[in-house]
Amino acid sequence: MKIVIKKEILLEGLNNVSKALSTRNIIPVLNGIKFEVTKKGVTLTATDNDISIKHFIDKKNIEKIEEEGTLVIIGKIIVDIVRKLPNDIINLEDLDNTKAIISTKTSKFDLNCYDLNDFPNIKFEEENSPIKLDTKIFKEIINQTSYAASNQASRPLLTGINLKITGNLFECCATDSYRLAKKTLTLPDTNTNNMNVVIPSNNINELVKILEDDDEILECSIFSNKILFKYKNLLFQSSLLNGSYPNTDNLIPNTFDINLELDLNEFYNVIDRASIFAQTKEKNIIELEVKENKLKITSNSHEVGKVEEKMNCENLDNKNIKISFSSKYMLEVLKTFNNEKIIISLNGEIKPIIIKEKDDKNLIQLILPIKTF
Amino acid sequence: MKIVIKKEILLEGLNNVSKALSTRNIIPVLNGIKFEVTKKGVTLTATDNDISIKHFIDKKNIEKIEEEGTLVIIGKIIVDIVRKLPNDIINLEDLDNTKAIISTKTSKFDLNCYDLNDFPNIKFEEENSPIKLDTKIFKEIINQTSYAASNQASRPLLTGINLKITGNLFECCATDSYRLAKKTLTLPDTNTNNMNVVIPSNNINELVKILEDDDEILECSIFSNKILFKYKNLLFQSSLLNGSYPNTDNLIPNTFDINLELDLNEFYNVIDRASIFAQTKEKNIIELEVKENKLKITSNSHEVGKVEEKMNCENLDNKNIKISFSSKYMLEVLKTFNNEKIIISLNGEIKPIIIKEKDDKNLIQLILPIKTF
Repeated sequence: MKIVIKKEILLEGLNNVSKALSTRNIIPVLNGIKFEVTKKGVTLTATDNDISIKHFIDKKNIEKIEEEGTLVIIGKIIVDIVRKLPNDIINLEDLDNTKAIISTKTSKFDLNCYDLNDFPNIKFEEENSPIKLDTKIFKEIINQTSYAASNQASRPLLTGINLKITGNLFECCATDSYRLAKKTLTLPDTNTNNMNVVIPSNNINELVKILEDDDEILECSIFSNKILFKYKNLLFQSSLLNGSYPNTDNLIPNTFDINLELDLNEFYNVIDRASIFAQTKEKNIIELEVKENKLKITSNSHEVGKVEEKMNCENLDNKNIKISFSSKYMLEVLKTFNNEKIIISLNGEIKPIIIKEKDDKNLIQLILPIKTF
Repeated sequence: MKIVIKKEILLEGLNNVSKALSTRNIIPVLNGIKFEVTKKGVTLTATDNDISIKHFIDKKNIEKIEEEGTLVIIGKIIVDIVRKLPNDIINLEDLDNTKAIISTKTSKFDLNCYDLNDFPNIKFEEENSPIKLDTKIFKEIINQTSYAASNQASRPLLTGINLKITGNLFECCATDSYRLAKKTLTLPDTNTNNMNVVIPSNNINELVKILEDDDEILECSIFSNKILFKYKNLLFQSSLLNGSYPNTDNLIPNTFDINLELDLNEFYNVIDRASIFAQTKEKNIIELEVKENKLKITSNSHEVGKVEEKMNCENLDNKNIKISFSSKYMLEVLKTFNNEKIIISLNGEIKPIIIKEKDDKNLIQLILPIKTF
């Protein structure tokens, strides 16, 4: 194997596939990145047996392909080397198929390689008619929902994010059973393939880190136990979680007794200050009291003291209520919105709190209140 | 006690004194900041019994002083509150001398306070004729030397930084016995008070964080077991380390067999790349080989592989050498320089390596080589 390639081209590919390198993998070869050089170009592959990523560099972006071949190079080291080399041309070749030589005019690295035979044989299957999604929209959806997934291994399904397509309806949902985030979208085309899968939220977050804010199409192929995303010259494959995701539709009320219109930034700052004391407590409990067009937010800490914040709101139904909830959860919800105005909808002090943007009802955020009496 | 004060004025003072709040202090009251309100203004004090800081806010910078008084408020909490309040006017008053009320138009915090009698009585003594230093120069000196101090408690004196003034000669030195950094300066005036003290490097680093890059004078008063710095409206007092600091003058050779002139940035990048493998090893050993006007830097790791870097140098004495040293230490040395060109001076492979800027001989950096045979 022997190629000459620009630093930035190689680094982009290495950065992408390195998202699949586990830091705590006990199988040594899974710390490696596989380089496959053919006349068509260079394919980089990495896997931790849960996420697998393949990045293809076409020959037209490579200065010279002098010799075909395959090597598995220590991932962390090769990324570090290429990152620190000057912005110039890099030579990469093998030595007796067991070592990699990375060199420039003034630098030369001899790297021991893993045995190629130890590297798992990952199949990246694509469907003939994959589901097509807009990359920018997909990124936003995941960022608005995945934070609500559980990080408790005790209920594995809830550590995932539920993606559903039925006809032209796309739905994305995550919950840890104390809060829930759900985004619904109408797709421009009706898909012939419906889907209903649960993807580990950590995996989908790694995918989102790779995706850029562009208008490229993200293609999605679903199999019984895995899902494949295709984005530009990249294939990203994740395992799926087995089991049927809880039906969350009936958790979200359709009618509300109380609807409050609030300024997003002001409410965020108020909750943020009210949570200064809450930090010392497990559940970060704060209390919200609505009286006509006034909100009062309070929090108590026996050791430290108490806080009381006031702000105005539009009390659309002119009803009063007192309700308690986790300030940490509320702050995380508020970070998912972009609009200036939000609507908080309530049905009483032990019923779910629903938060939406004023002008966009596609994103539903739910927090369960906390009983304090 | 009752005052009205602008957020940014109070926050500046709180940020300054909070450098003396220890995060792991087992005496509760030392987590507090003392507020003393008199007709003249507000004095904030914090101490961990090692560093003590006092910040004075003059009445001319305070909107209203309505009532004198003293309170000791939980430091971390009051800093957090004031930081998160909007950029506006803040009311601060006591409730029965045992609680603090911090309020704005829409926020109200009731804070439990520490017992004033538990707060240590810190004396901030100033000398009549303190030593006067230029703040910007002092900051630079500390930043160029304090990194070389030891972090091993086994030799307490070496965890400090040695400040010496003899006549108009100012000298600052730190060493962990494997490396040494020394800066010498000629002061504009001859001081009548000579000094020779060892200040804990952690303490002096906290002072440097507070000092701005301005031309204010930094005044320095020395006592048998403590040192006081006065900067604007701030007093910063640190304990001193007892014992006589080792005489380091005879460690630094005056003549050298070999002098190499190098480009600082290029050399930094070369060492940085050569240290990619060294990271996996305790001592980060790399080898430097000089042959005429060529440098070769190599590093080996049995598990990972090897690296060889080349660069040009001006070999001023035209002598060749091979020498090994810690890449971590060399990178830390190189970060202290500003000039484009540096001079590395050597006397053989087991003698100290001296690094200076080409055009400024006042800063001397020394690294001991590592025997590899």
